[in-house]
Amino acid sequence: MITVADNSSNDLMSVCKRRGFIWPSFEMYGGVAGMYDYGPLGCALKNNIVEMWRSIYKGREGFVEIDSETINPREVFKASGHLDNFADLITYCQKCQAPYRADHMVKEFYDNPDILTPKQLEEAFVEHKIRCPACGGELGPVEEFNLMFRTNIGPGNARVGYMRPETAQGIFVNYSNLYRYNREKLPMGVIQTGRSYRNEIAPRQGMIRMREFNQMEVELFVDPEDKDWVRFPEIENGTLDLIPNTTLQLTTMTVKEAVEKGVIANRVLAYFVYTTKQLLISLGIDEKRLRFREHEKDEMAHYAADCWDAEVLLSYGWTEIVGIADRGNWDLSRHSQFSGEDLTHFKKYDQPRETEVEKIQPNSKALGPAFKGKAKAISEAIGAQPISAIKDGKLKVTVDGEEIELGSEYFQIIKRVEKVTGERVIPHVIEPSHGLDRIFYSVLEHAYEYDEKEDYVVMHLAPAVAPIKVGVFPLMEKDGLDEMAKRIYEKVHTHRVEAYYDGSGTIGRRYARMDEVGTPWCITVDYDSLKDGTVTIRDRDTTEQKRISAEDAPRIIDELLAGKAFADL
Amino acid sequence: MITVADNSSNDLMSVCKRRGFIWPSFEMYGGVAGMYDYGPLGCALKNNIVEMWRSIYKGREGFVEIDSETINPREVFKASGHLDNFADLITYCQKCQAPYRADHMVKEFYDNPDILTPKQLEEAFVEHKIRCPACGGELGPVEEFNLMFRTNIGPGNARVGYMRPETAQGIFVNYSNLYRYNREKLPMGVIQTGRSYRNEIAPRQGMIRMREFNQMEVELFVDPEDKDWVRFPEIENGTLDLIPNTTLQLTTMTVKEAVEKGVIANRVLAYFVYTTKQLLISLGIDEKRLRFREHEKDEMAHYAADCWDAEVLLSYGWTEIVGIADRGNWDLSRHSQFSGEDLTHFKKYDQPRETEVEKIQPNSKALGPAFKGKAKAISEAIGAQPISAIKDGKLKVTVDGEEIELGSEYFQIIKRVEKVTGERVIPHVIEPSHGLDRIFYSVLEHAYEYDEKEDYVVMHLAPAVAPIKVGVFPLMEKDGLDEMAKRIYEKVHTHRVEAYYDGSGTIGRRYARMDEVGTPWCITVDYDSLKDGTVTIRDRDTTEQKRISAEDAPRIIDELLAGKAFADL
Repeated sequence: MITVADNSSNDLMSVCKRRGFIWPSFEMYGGVAGMYDYGPLGCALKNNIVEMWRSIYKGREGFVEIDSETINPREVFKASGHLDNFADLITYCQKCQAPYRADHMVKEFYDNPDILTPKQLEEAFVEHKIRCPACGGELGPVEEFNLMFRTNIGPGNARVGYMRPETAQGIFVNYSNLYRYNREKLPMGVIQTGRSYRNEIAPRQGMIRMREFNQMEVELFVDPEDKDWVRFPEIENGTLDLIPNTTLQLTTMTVKEAVEKGVIANRVLAYFVYTTKQLLISLGIDEKRLRFREHEKDEMAHYAADCWDAEVLLSYGWTEIVGIADRGNWDLSRHSQFSGEDLTHFKKYDQPRETEVEKIQPNSKALGPAFKGKAKAISEAIGAQPISAIKDGKLKVTVDGEEIELGSEYFQIIKRVEKVTGERVIPHVIEPSHGLDRIFYSVLEHAYEYDEKEDYVVMHLAPAVAPIKVGVFPLMEKDGLDEMAKRIYEKVHTHRVEAYYDGSGTIGRRYARMDEVGTPWCITVDYDSLKDGTVTIRDRDTTEQKRISAEDAPRIIDELLAGKAFADL
Repeated sequence: MITVADNSSNDLMSVCKRRGFIWPSFEMYGGVAGMYDYGPLGCALKNNIVEMWRSIYKGREGFVEIDSETINPREVFKASGHLDNFADLITYCQKCQAPYRADHMVKEFYDNPDILTPKQLEEAFVEHKIRCPACGGELGPVEEFNLMFRTNIGPGNARVGYMRPETAQGIFVNYSNLYRYNREKLPMGVIQTGRSYRNEIAPRQGMIRMREFNQMEVELFVDPEDKDWVRFPEIENGTLDLIPNTTLQLTTMTVKEAVEKGVIANRVLAYFVYTTKQLLISLGIDEKRLRFREHEKDEMAHYAADCWDAEVLLSYGWTEIVGIADRGNWDLSRHSQFSGEDLTHFKKYDQPRETEVEKIQPNSKALGPAFKGKAKAISEAIGAQPISAIKDGKLKVTVDGEEIELGSEYFQIIKRVEKVTGERVIPHVIEPSHGLDRIFYSVLEHAYEYDEKEDYVVMHLAPAVAPIKVGVFPLMEKDGLDEMAKRIYEKVHTHRVEAYYDGSGTIGRRYARMDEVGTPWCITVDYDSLKDGTVTIRDRDTTEQKRISAEDAPRIIDELLAGKAFADL
């Protein structure tokens, strides 16, 4: 088999660049660290991953999808906490002004340098004699650097905006719209995919840390008192490789066990941990290189009820590619607090309940003489106030634009038994948040096989995500073989089932080109094809070949894509 | 028929907001002008439009798709011209500092206020006594306001970035990567969809002018001397409603006539004008409210060979929703000039041609004595230089890191006849550029029908773009009708064929809800269904109903989506 002479071009990132999966951005202008463009094969692969995710969340679960803006005004991130907390610690070389992530400078001396304070980091620089790696200059003070890209909306500096650091906020700020769309019912599942932004100080690690990255986020709003899931019984016997934060030991158990033993906080969270496994396996992630790690206690957000990371083993080590969290009512309560908007769910009781409630009752006898013609309006205004409006025994009401302060002689607090039909609760949020670029890269790394002896690359991509589904070749580009192959290409190729016509080089070389980009099947038109209308179809992973009718090719490709085994053709 | 009581909520934008197509962004925080979020129905409709566009460009034409970054470094927009020219004229009230688009302030006095200079606008303010609409204050000087959102990449101000004003640049800066991917062949078609940004001074007109908008751009790179298209004969007899810039009169002609009469500059451009018509019609745009207007001579970019806008008639008037331009070699020559990178196509001749070429020949006799041991290396360096390297009769070469200036005694210019196998040309770009949000809005406006007498809205969306394909109702939510309806829903619903289960309210009300969001078909389970396994299926546009087998529902929906007529069921 023939391939490229230079071995070094066969490592994964080289293959990705050379074959058009991924290109460092703006190379023509010197490049920008932490930015990558998806080439033709990468874009198709990425879109296929998104479609698989949609098929689970929109298809199977019936969630809805939205698409919200990427520039958000300041208020959103004040409420979400990103304005105050979405920061890395930075230090600059005092001599050459090069910026560095402070914790990265001391990582050989500490297990978890990212928990050090600015002061501790400054002391560590001195203690370990850390200097600027570029010029040897002294490092300066350590300070916070907010990782949001900042801009101005409209002319001037009047309205500050930030590129969103996550797609999730676009769902939270639309809660009321979504709740109305869902006819005021819970559970309510909403998904969004798109760009998010993180202005890294000094990005490394290729596609694992990108300044512009792609997410697929799911926000499931549930009744705080009902953390079950209707399809849980269907998956309860599935197994998960878990690292609980109590033992920090890898342990394999069924989903049901994980919930019953209190390892995963509740059934709905466990269901979506397992759903994440299903999705990743269907994308081609190697089950043996996948585990779920619970956030350690000092790592978990204070508001989270529980949080698990799907981690895959990559050349970078175990890497988080999906986070699945029970975020409690944090997101909605924060936005409610900062916007003043009611972001609750009205939870209707099965039966109305009798409850003793306190009410303010106007004292008409006192109001009449004191306020004359206005007494009736004031009386109504008093009745509309909640108990909490009474301050220091007094109550302020506004009547006809006039604010009137009333002493306690004008009202009294009464207790009444009322029938209550339900209560308002702030929904809890279950959030499976997917790093699309990381998933993309992991899918490639787990699919990549390099045979050093043969100097041959095969990308074992799952057919569903493979950018090209079928290569179509004429044995020779003459004698009508090419016309027949082109006709087959035209019949097979659609924007969802991409085909690739290749007429140049030896057949071996053409197979090699398709193996390298993970094309699961190749069809070859030879001289027999002209006589009997059959063509060979070759399976990438087994290199087995069969003859099929050219006429049937589109149907056969559809069947293979639907899961039929090549051996059963 | 029953619908909403308040008529005013039945205008299109109200329906869109109420039903979850589109929501003004950040309403919870007071909103931001020119920003909209796509709700569940809008997101699905938008994605369906993108899929139809892909089916033409990726599917039929075999173009490739990429996905590039939205933040670009300054250099990109210096080359593209956006840094210098992507601006509106702004003026501020001298009293309250409110910003205004200067040309909008005088639009009642001029036909084309956007061609006025800053000075002319300032004079117009005085002449027509234009004052701040908000406070009556005097308007200030008129200046340019660049419409790109600006940010910084990485810490500090060292690297300025801008949110891209169009997706096209991401394709141009990847030309070399794409050309290699396409195995150095032309024509080469590349598409991209995604967000673009335009920091409007004071956006109005709803979805027609958005600060964040979505594009679907196509960049087709062609041989400047070959502006034909292989599938042109298939569409040459199709008709187009054209407004040429020579007559400014609407005229209908075939594509073939348009090219032959010189109305459209060439066959490839005409082919994609017609392709645009095909796409828009398939999305449900009303052919009678669609025309193609050629840019007037003072409106067309100086580098463009020809440029046409697809305009649709909306409540805003005739509005551009797609632009189809022959941009010549402008884009690639600018990026080549600013980056120094070779962005050409090597055009191989059918036969090698003999051409006289000028070369620099080293003068060994003079070099030897003068440079001794270095003479050979210098001689080779001279031979590698192009003629253009000679400046003022002298030539600089670098040997072993040392720069050596050589007088004319060390080389001569010779003429030689060489066999030339081809030449390097800068490809021309044909660009169909689609405003996705505008298309989205136009599709809704052309589909919208409001019956005032009945106070009833029907959205006649093409089935392919309709967000929900089928409503599934039990006649009553009891007696097992609901279970059967839910089973049908589960069988029909996928992430691509969305179904909607609705069990509440009268059947009439449920049809009305589905008609209002453009659902083409509804299936109802009634008491006969329990006996004979049949259900009714209702067609939105005719309100006709038929009985079909519940078992066959998924297949029948697929057939209807593939184009089968309801009457033929």
